[in-house]
Amino acid sequence: MMEQIGMTDRKNPIPEPTVRRIPWYLSCVSYLSSRNVEFVSSTAISREINVDASQIAKDLSYLGIKGKTRIGYEVKSLEKKLRDFLGFNRRHPALLVGVGSLGGALIADSGLQRYGLDIVAGFDVKPEIIGKTISGVPISHISALSSLRESLKAEIGVLTVPSEEAQSVANQLIRAGIKALWNFTPIRLRPHEGVVIQNTSIYADLAVMYNSIDGKS
Amino acid sequence: MMEQIGMTDRKNPIPEPTVRRIPWYLSCVSYLSSRNVEFVSSTAISREINVDASQIAKDLSYLGIKGKTRIGYEVKSLEKKLRDFLGFNRRHPALLVGVGSLGGALIADSGLQRYGLDIVAGFDVKPEIIGKTISGVPISHISALSSLRESLKAEIGVLTVPSEEAQSVANQLIRAGIKALWNFTPIRLRPHEGVVIQNTSIYADLAVMYNSIDGKS
Repeated sequence: MMEQIGMTDRKNPIPEPTVRRIPWYLSCVSYLSSRNVEFVSSTAISREINVDASQIAKDLSYLGIKGKTRIGYEVKSLEKKLRDFLGFNRRHPALLVGVGSLGGALIADSGLQRYGLDIVAGFDVKPEIIGKTISGVPISHISALSSLRESLKAEIGVLTVPSEEAQSVANQLIRAGIKALWNFTPIRLRPHEGVVIQNTSIYADLAVMYNSIDGKS
Repeated sequence: MMEQIGMTDRKNPIPEPTVRRIPWYLSCVSYLSSRNVEFVSSTAISREINVDASQIAKDLSYLGIKGKTRIGYEVKSLEKKLRDFLGFNRRHPALLVGVGSLGGALIADSGLQRYGLDIVAGFDVKPEIIGKTISGVPISHISALSSLRESLKAEIGVLTVPSEEAQSVANQLIRAGIKALWNFTPIRLRPHEGVVIQNTSIYADLAVMYNSIDGKS
């Protein structure tokens, strides 16, 4: 096999645009894999997802993945390497704070588990849901955050609280020892040394979409 | 009043980075508004959300909003203008296809309505949910997509189907007359003339977050 995964050099991290394209390659390759296709070229992936074949080859070489001349990439092996690289094959225990409709949905969303995110505990302050479970995940009062964070060894905190609570709950999660915050609120959280902040800006995406529709009509 | 909203020139659309910052300003200003604060300066907003005050003033002037010297912006009026600009004050009827756990959650998420997105119908192929309602929204078989799209005058299609169905369902939505697709799948959809495609890449965000955590540890 000429394909191989090199050690990724953490001092030279892989650029975010590359990381963001890898899930596209993975979804294409997973589809081929489910159809028992054995080999795929970067040109064939390119046709499916509308990214330059040379860009695909370059992105994959960042990950130390090389195709064979005239044959391309072995599909099953490529699928595994992409999932490994993305961290989807590892389990990442996470806490979620703010069990409203979005928070509850994320806890119940079995899709996230297939991408390595394992929400192991939910937190809120509403008496009516504390002590309950959602899809087997227990909901506790936020005062238990710090002790449960430690015993569950969760490094990720998912933030789905109302905007006005976002920064103070983020601070609580950081004090409790969280290493990464996945922020679904429209608030821009203050950066904190050693803590990764990942925003999923559903409302900003909506605004950009509305704006683009108006621009076209 | 020196403040005013100019007509935004659609031939020179407002840059996406500006559009993406406006929700941060809005969340800050809404908080002040709920606290009955009357005026706010760009410097004060800057302290809260960690964006340069000059950038804030520039972004707001793109929208034709000017503050008064030494007084700043009138909070209630600024809040309304930002919500108007973002389209959160208008109702945008939308269809959702793929009523799994994420799709069902988005239908049930009353938060989206506060941001102007009104999901008026859900579609799926699973017999056990067709004919049911979620939070009052009826779920129909996908074969009814085209006729319901027209009678409901929905311009937005929310895509929460499994990856392997994403492109074909997107094509169906486009044939049914949808003007914008909000894509939650990890698939990169093929562009289509006159149709806005807005991706909310939850799984790519997860991958970037995992990667950043590994890079720091």
